[in-house]
Amino acid sequence: MAIEAARFSPSLAAAAFLARRPPPALFPFSLRRRIPLLHVLAGSSGGDGRVVALSSSELRKRRGLSSSSGAADPASDGDEKLRSLRRLFARPDVAIDAYIVPSQDAHQSEFIAECFMRRAYLTGFTGSAGTAVVTKDKAALWTDGRYFLQAEKELTHEWTLMRSGNHGVPTTSEWLNDVLPSGCRVGIDPFLFSFDAAEELKDSISNKNHELVLVRGMNLVDEIWGDARPEPPKEPTRVHDIKYAGIDVPSKLSFIRSHLTENGCDAVVISMLDEVAWLLNMRGSDVPHSPVFYSYLIVEVSTATLFVDSNKVSEDVLEHLEKAGVKLKPYEAIVSEVERLAEKGAKLWLDSSSVNAAIITAFKSSCDKHMKKKGKAGEKVEKEAYSDEPTGVENGALNAVYNVSPVTLAKSVKNEAEIEGMKNSHLRDAAALAEFWCWLEDEVCKSVPLTEVQVAEKLLEFRKKQDGFIETSFDTISGYGANGAVIHYRPTPEDCSSVGSDNLFLLDSGAQYIDGTTDITRTVHFGEPSPRQKECFTRVLQGHIALDQAVFPERTPGFVLDVLARSSLWKIGLDYRHGHGVGAALNVHEGPQSISYRYGNLTALQKGMIVSNEPGYYEDNSFGIRIENLLLIKELNLANSFGGISYLGFERLTFVPIQSKLIDVSLLSPSEINWVNDYHEEVWDKVSPLLSGDTRDWLWKNTRPILDVTHRYSHAQDIA
Amino acid sequence: MAIEAARFSPSLAAAAFLARRPPPALFPFSLRRRIPLLHVLAGSSGGDGRVVALSSSELRKRRGLSSSSGAADPASDGDEKLRSLRRLFARPDVAIDAYIVPSQDAHQSEFIAECFMRRAYLTGFTGSAGTAVVTKDKAALWTDGRYFLQAEKELTHEWTLMRSGNHGVPTTSEWLNDVLPSGCRVGIDPFLFSFDAAEELKDSISNKNHELVLVRGMNLVDEIWGDARPEPPKEPTRVHDIKYAGIDVPSKLSFIRSHLTENGCDAVVISMLDEVAWLLNMRGSDVPHSPVFYSYLIVEVSTATLFVDSNKVSEDVLEHLEKAGVKLKPYEAIVSEVERLAEKGAKLWLDSSSVNAAIITAFKSSCDKHMKKKGKAGEKVEKEAYSDEPTGVENGALNAVYNVSPVTLAKSVKNEAEIEGMKNSHLRDAAALAEFWCWLEDEVCKSVPLTEVQVAEKLLEFRKKQDGFIETSFDTISGYGANGAVIHYRPTPEDCSSVGSDNLFLLDSGAQYIDGTTDITRTVHFGEPSPRQKECFTRVLQGHIALDQAVFPERTPGFVLDVLARSSLWKIGLDYRHGHGVGAALNVHEGPQSISYRYGNLTALQKGMIVSNEPGYYEDNSFGIRIENLLLIKELNLANSFGGISYLGFERLTFVPIQSKLIDVSLLSPSEINWVNDYHEEVWDKVSPLLSGDTRDWLWKNTRPILDVTHRYSHAQDIA
Repeated sequence: MAIEAARFSPSLAAAAFLARRPPPALFPFSLRRRIPLLHVLAGSSGGDGRVVALSSSELRKRRGLSSSSGAADPASDGDEKLRSLRRLFARPDVAIDAYIVPSQDAHQSEFIAECFMRRAYLTGFTGSAGTAVVTKDKAALWTDGRYFLQAEKELTHEWTLMRSGNHGVPTTSEWLNDVLPSGCRVGIDPFLFSFDAAEELKDSISNKNHELVLVRGMNLVDEIWGDARPEPPKEPTRVHDIKYAGIDVPSKLSFIRSHLTENGCDAVVISMLDEVAWLLNMRGSDVPHSPVFYSYLIVEVSTATLFVDSNKVSEDVLEHLEKAGVKLKPYEAIVSEVERLAEKGAKLWLDSSSVNAAIITAFKSSCDKHMKKKGKAGEKVEKEAYSDEPTGVENGALNAVYNVSPVTLAKSVKNEAEIEGMKNSHLRDAAALAEFWCWLEDEVCKSVPLTEVQVAEKLLEFRKKQDGFIETSFDTISGYGANGAVIHYRPTPEDCSSVGSDNLFLLDSGAQYIDGTTDITRTVHFGEPSPRQKECFTRVLQGHIALDQAVFPERTPGFVLDVLARSSLWKIGLDYRHGHGVGAALNVHEGPQSISYRYGNLTALQKGMIVSNEPGYYEDNSFGIRIENLLLIKELNLANSFGGISYLGFERLTFVPIQSKLIDVSLLSPSEINWVNDYHEEVWDKVSPLLSGDTRDWLWKNTRPILDVTHRYSHAQDIA
Repeated sequence: MAIEAARFSPSLAAAAFLARRPPPALFPFSLRRRIPLLHVLAGSSGGDGRVVALSSSELRKRRGLSSSSGAADPASDGDEKLRSLRRLFARPDVAIDAYIVPSQDAHQSEFIAECFMRRAYLTGFTGSAGTAVVTKDKAALWTDGRYFLQAEKELTHEWTLMRSGNHGVPTTSEWLNDVLPSGCRVGIDPFLFSFDAAEELKDSISNKNHELVLVRGMNLVDEIWGDARPEPPKEPTRVHDIKYAGIDVPSKLSFIRSHLTENGCDAVVISMLDEVAWLLNMRGSDVPHSPVFYSYLIVEVSTATLFVDSNKVSEDVLEHLEKAGVKLKPYEAIVSEVERLAEKGAKLWLDSSSVNAAIITAFKSSCDKHMKKKGKAGEKVEKEAYSDEPTGVENGALNAVYNVSPVTLAKSVKNEAEIEGMKNSHLRDAAALAEFWCWLEDEVCKSVPLTEVQVAEKLLEFRKKQDGFIETSFDTISGYGANGAVIHYRPTPEDCSSVGSDNLFLLDSGAQYIDGTTDITRTVHFGEPSPRQKECFTRVLQGHIALDQAVFPERTPGFVLDVLARSSLWKIGLDYRHGHGVGAALNVHEGPQSISYRYGNLTALQKGMIVSNEPGYYEDNSFGIRIENLLLIKELNLANSFGGISYLGFERLTFVPIQSKLIDVSLLSPSEINWVNDYHEEVWDKVSPLLSGDTRDWLWKNTRPILDVTHRYSHAQDIA
């Protein structure tokens, strides 16, 4: 599915990713490090709109049912929450003048459990992106253009809506610097900010001599949420079979340990949930759409410890972990364990762009305390496991290496078993989609129109029939007509269109299977598309083909190829804003790899990585077009290899017909026509064996050549 | 012409520009700031090989004639120079353990006057790129792969050749840290290092506690060069007519002053020679190929001072300067003037990536001295013109704004008169080239073969006949066969090939005219090209066409488009390494704009900028291919403008036929065939009026359509 962000910043394109922030989970690598917190706080996420696990309506419903305040009037409810929150400001152990409530959980997750949806609980605003800031007399919520209307509806009069990205709208820090008198104390829950983000916040509010206060020991929103707060998820974890994982846990741990040794480190803290799941060949279901479970992992040179609610760990899983030498500790023990490592003098590998401020600041102050004690005693402490550090170190910083997690890149390069699983699951997914499109084409002709939600539900039914299906990999984007132009549109039963034959229908969906993760978009028209729609569709297709066919030398970052997907649209003054990496039976949005215009992401595309190819075009209030396949990066065997290096290209994973009716063949070059015909031939060859009856007929009809150019083209060669 | 650089660094593509350094003059903008000195010193220039004004042979000849040492044996000559240099190390006012001699002049110029070719004088190595480092017992020269053979020939046994870029070869700093005992004094002439470069050098040698010593008051090489050193150039300057310059000097100064005021600055020091020339609408001929003159300029809010040898300034020019309120001071007075400004408390705008360390360190220490005096006196100094600085400032850094020169971007965006001049000069240049190619085609058939040098000389003759011709804009690259694969090949009369009909002939040349600057490459075959050559040529052409036809939204950096020029080559595993901006009747290599893979250069392409479109392919020891046109960036009027922004495209400035014989038409799409035919039609329309007789016939023959695809293509549309 698409990840949207603003095109370019006013001055330098490099700042593009500063203007709108991609979802934190997507760019754990170079990009995330460079995002200033101002923008994080401003909630101006260019993300996917899917941080909330449930649809807005469902969430509202649930919250209404479970609310202990019992207030039916949302306004008075809101008032009471703010009053309670402000009362906490005055507590001697808190003593703050403002509190910032972000959307994140403690792991920078894209999808979060309901109990962590504190911003939604506090503000009543249920959109995925937003940051709430409450002072003693003001309350403001920042969100981006996707959510202005929703926020207006959901916020009470006590809240000021800050429309991020609109002219003159301050960032949260600017606002705090403006509304608070100099020298105030601004509180945050340090678990909900990465260390880097907290540091940037500290810097930006220091302009007005404000102090950033890490409120430890409690989250103030949880305090007022009280008993009504949902329980943390208790879903059982499972072992991800080695036939899908490909590499066993001891080998993965040993790989990480070799990195530790090379960097002179004694231990690494892994806090991204997909990284823990990948490293331990485990899966869970604590959040929707991503098969992960709430946990931290510390890998030391000779041991490894998983911090997780032990109730989630069955006998099977326990045995699996024990075999790999992984011990269990309670989820909450992570901070005290990090402090213990500091006392031992261990040197830690910390990814400060993902590990939260609670953990890193605890480590640092514990190091400082330990070193001071050492100094005071006037003698060297007993030699412990890790005490070969230079003596006299007075700063925890010297006991840590701040670097991107060693799991990030390893996870992004898929092994053979993972690739096999991705290929297989994509074929089953293609079969489900063929059934679905065959059904829908028939259904649209009938008199009773189906809604966007009904269509999405039916798609889910078809997918459920496939082996190994687990759940959707994100909320289905089912957008008819103008709704298709809303990149992260999510229809609700109460508020959605019917799918008809007068306009384009855009369907972006994906699934989690036991062996892989899918993500596909097709755009179709069940009636007569306009010439404008055909031109736009064809130019999007030309971009899709150009990227699909790209060949590039190793060490090429993804953004270098991005222009190939755009140049056909640019020729008529059109553009779009999105592209991402994909996990194997893991997060549908995965970093560090991606093909997008984020020039800050210098991660080279590597053999085994999986990326989305999804150019699009969105005409506001009219229609949306996106054609999305997933691509596996593979090494090519070419006639030459200039520079003595490898040349890479793509192998398609997605095999679902592209609607020929929408193609203006006159715009295509012979080689583009060949691409369409070859792709459809491949779709038929690979997917037809899984189908029968009408669906098989449908597939046959929808994979016929659009024009046989072979003859014409060879003729042209003769002429030449 | 081409600018070469290494493709990618081993780890991150971002480091590509670190691995091989573009010529200093080309990237005064963002790129230059990020080049660590290690590489500057390593002399691993990815540049154009034309820092030396004269060919190696000419230079050797001249140096032989004028050498006062009179030693015929180059070895003993070298010995004596090193001995003399080392004797200077011991002088009490010098007291150093090592001395670094770079290739640069004091202005980061691409082409330098002979009197500044100190590295060539000292080492005997006459290549354009290289850095010499001399310690008390060692002497080493760093140069890059282009010059390994030449350096081996030219260096005496006392010099160690350091082959930059080869595995295990240290940088100059690494080498100094290795060969010197800890705590040594490393000397440089601070005029020959930008302030940034000197700072980086200081940092890198501080690892071994070495001190960087700015040896002021004399250049040690000049000391030993003595009377034999050529005089500094004394060529007269001239006024660049307003009809070519387009904007008068008062307007340009007023533009710069508005920038000063906006940034709270009182004055700016301009040290790049093309920036001085552009700002003052003056031209000179102190160095070959670039119409510039040695000078500095200080623009203050109400005055401006040109630091130049007054002998170069005629009455006309003086009047021109006086009208604009520009005063004259001697070239050497720059440092004392900067010190005077510091004393006055002026806040300076300094481009520390181009202004040399002598100027900036003088300013800083003068500020410090002034401030300390103020502090000591215990009272505020008399209010002077610029004394409204915050009091108590103890650091010169606070009295300066370090930013890219305000002239850099202004100069790169050409005004209408400049564009007009560029267009006109390109047409006259095209006429000269048509005459030349017509002549050469005829000549090659004759029995006596011409050498590459003779061919280049004949081209110069044809150009000289054109109105307003001044000189070549760089040394002509005239490469037959395998020589064409040497990107910066420069034939010498003693050592060059004949131009025959068995292989490809690559000719990259350009001229300075009174109204514009040209740069064009064509590759031709006078016999029967091989299928391999045709395939490579056609893929280079496809890249050329793709870039020529690109449309892109405003704020797009040049590197985004670079892949368009490469993707056709990449498809068969080929690649190349070069692209640059161009000045108007000024430097043929101009920053900050360029289309290349230097991802660090985020400068957006803007309407009015001129860039080269020059994909190529080089098959070592076999042949070289390059097709180069200059392109003007223009705003397009498209049917749409997504995002409410401008869309930009290119207008070709170069109109010389591309040899059809080398095109494998079967590889081209119909639209690519149309491009070739349309381009040739345009060449005919624009250039034929300037020609007559055989040349006109030649042009007619060489602009015929390669294939009429209009009919075929519309037929295809009918079928569709």
